[in-house]
Amino acid sequence: MSPNVAIRDIAGGVTAPKGFRAAGVSCGIKKRNPANPAPLDLALITTERAVSAAAVFTTNKAVAAPVIVSRDHLSQSSGHAAAIVVNAGCANACTGAAGLEVAKQMAAAAASAAGCDADQVLVASTGVIGVPLSIDKIRVGITAAAAALSENGSDAAMRAIMTTDPFPKGKAVSVQTADGRSFAVGGIAKGSGMIEPRMATMLGFLTTDAAVAPAVLQAALSRVCDETFNAITVDGECSTNDCVFLLASGASGVAIDRDDDPALMEGLRAVAGHLAREIVRGGEGATKLVTVHVTGAATRGDAWLAARTIANSPLVKTALHGGDPNWGRLVAAAGRSGAAFSLDKASVAIGPVMMFVSGVPHDERADEAAEVMKAKEITIAVDLGAGGSHAAKMWTCDFSAEYVRINAEYRT
Amino acid sequence: MSPNVAIRDIAGGVTAPKGFRAAGVSCGIKKRNPANPAPLDLALITTERAVSAAAVFTTNKAVAAPVIVSRDHLSQSSGHAAAIVVNAGCANACTGAAGLEVAKQMAAAAASAAGCDADQVLVASTGVIGVPLSIDKIRVGITAAAAALSENGSDAAMRAIMTTDPFPKGKAVSVQTADGRSFAVGGIAKGSGMIEPRMATMLGFLTTDAAVAPAVLQAALSRVCDETFNAITVDGECSTNDCVFLLASGASGVAIDRDDDPALMEGLRAVAGHLAREIVRGGEGATKLVTVHVTGAATRGDAWLAARTIANSPLVKTALHGGDPNWGRLVAAAGRSGAAFSLDKASVAIGPVMMFVSGVPHDERADEAAEVMKAKEITIAVDLGAGGSHAAKMWTCDFSAEYVRINAEYRT
Repeated sequence: MSPNVAIRDIAGGVTAPKGFRAAGVSCGIKKRNPANPAPLDLALITTERAVSAAAVFTTNKAVAAPVIVSRDHLSQSSGHAAAIVVNAGCANACTGAAGLEVAKQMAAAAASAAGCDADQVLVASTGVIGVPLSIDKIRVGITAAAAALSENGSDAAMRAIMTTDPFPKGKAVSVQTADGRSFAVGGIAKGSGMIEPRMATMLGFLTTDAAVAPAVLQAALSRVCDETFNAITVDGECSTNDCVFLLASGASGVAIDRDDDPALMEGLRAVAGHLAREIVRGGEGATKLVTVHVTGAATRGDAWLAARTIANSPLVKTALHGGDPNWGRLVAAAGRSGAAFSLDKASVAIGPVMMFVSGVPHDERADEAAEVMKAKEITIAVDLGAGGSHAAKMWTCDFSAEYVRINAEYRT
Repeated sequence: MSPNVAIRDIAGGVTAPKGFRAAGVSCGIKKRNPANPAPLDLALITTERAVSAAAVFTTNKAVAAPVIVSRDHLSQSSGHAAAIVVNAGCANACTGAAGLEVAKQMAAAAASAAGCDADQVLVASTGVIGVPLSIDKIRVGITAAAAALSENGSDAAMRAIMTTDPFPKGKAVSVQTADGRSFAVGGIAKGSGMIEPRMATMLGFLTTDAAVAPAVLQAALSRVCDETFNAITVDGECSTNDCVFLLASGASGVAIDRDDDPALMEGLRAVAGHLAREIVRGGEGATKLVTVHVTGAATRGDAWLAARTIANSPLVKTALHGGDPNWGRLVAAAGRSGAAFSLDKASVAIGPVMMFVSGVPHDERADEAAEVMKAKEITIAVDLGAGGSHAAKMWTCDFSAEYVRINAEYRT
């Protein structure tokens, strides 16, 4: 962390920064059941006027209708937005031309409610793929949400975007700059596996009351996402609907004009990093949060390639589940990743325990490493020995029989 | 299949072709237990004199000592070999300079026993990573195996190379050429997951009594491996020890001088294809053998990329386990693969049931598709709609809680 920037947690989630209101309501998209007769399934986040906006979208070529609409709107508005509307329970993905029309009408309805132009609305959906989204239910939901908008609405919005998440995810911080001014960054997110009975998607909605121009905001968001939302994995899958939006209201009066501004970066990192790790901790069937730290890579790309291969390896993830300090699987995953790798210079550590040092096994430390692996949070470090100094850090979870159970059940 | 080539199954496995003998013995590398006091763990396959040889090795950069030695020998002998020696129970991988010396001595001992030069011996190992291999046990094993060599030795050799395999894998065919001559192709293989308590590796040993020059044999083997051993996956992992060897004795008197000779290709395909699919059918925790057929790809590389992504997707594999005709997961995996993909032209079929046609869902056929998925063998077909005519076919298995159980158990 930059020495001159101070960060502290505050309450309020996505509405902690000044200039934002939010609401979460139930409009009948999620299945109603006796235990939960009115599950929250529509969230609305609004600003007083159109503000700077940035977004990062799924790289999946099978993109959902809301992703197409949000991308278009952000481009048409030159990086401005006044509202975000989100539904859970239906992904509006693989729904063809009719689905695209529904996503557009969803934006138009939110624009009416928020008093802005349609292209100042960002839209997101998460849930079942291939099922039509009812615009009638959405309209009812938007009307109700607009009436419920509040500066304390983050909690309801955070719950309304959940699908299979075992817990809601929100975070806000106050950032004090080097010259003593302060602004806030807040956010909410959802995500557990890509799909559970066809439920999908990671969504993240971030806000700040710093004043940041759209191009700077976009560059800062892309940079932060690379080390947070794009550095996590539950099952290696990438959804049709993933997106992260960031709005900057400017209401704090603190102007930021560089995308590498330490205060803005630290604030975004604190919120996005927390939300991203919470997604992994609540991953389908997950019992452990694991940091994979790759060092000694010849290139930045190699570092990420090795980290991603290790973080997604079923054999590594099952060993993590079983608490087995099986360094051979880490070496094998790094070796097959495609990254430059030198077996006789490579090393592996489980927590602080060096199990494999410059090509030499230290199995005598297996009991010590097994003890480390009993914790709920573990770091595994792999040095590729490739003669470079590039590094990458990813977060993953263990792979349990519960993951298989969740995802093998026939959807009903 | 080529219309003028006739193939029929014969007995004899790797010793079915003329000119080969084999043996499998117990020499104390695998753990002995009351239920199995003398588990077979060393196999020897020999020819009367040095013959044409070809090999395909792991692409993992963490290569085991036997892979290094076999690659060197094949190069030094200009593609000739007179013996293959294999042990199971210890991979001799991540064992440093000492391990390399053991692999060399293992080849030298086999050369003495077979009466050939050391560089005419191919070596393979499978089992625990990072544990020293006892050359004393290996020498005892080689002496016993040399005394037991027989033209009926394929069965014992096939069992001696197993680690976690639920069943042994062998196959032989007689190939009749267009002009009525005949030769044989045989083989044995092992492989289940990459690792089970650090047990590793896919191994395949193929033989033929056709007369084929080394360069032609190598080209034919590489070609066949691409559509067989390299077209399967259990868990997406690639071992430190994988190898496939092919020896051609010439004892049938049938000379083959082109690497695309239909008789040679059909014979190799029949044996290698069977063994490869048997590895998947016996994959760790597997209950189903699944063919993934990708069509409509813009390039050959795209076809394989999409097939490999689908075949390794945890969400696809858990849906296969649960018998859930979840076409959304297939679309999402194809979309994230990196291959060119057009959602509104893409199609998905489960067996003969079209679930998604040119971008339009057909969920009304879900029950029909679920019925198809109850079988032990299933084909799933995905057309990428990318405007090309390239295709790829891979074999995978389902992902079960049993896989997690096998691989999460702490090795003891």
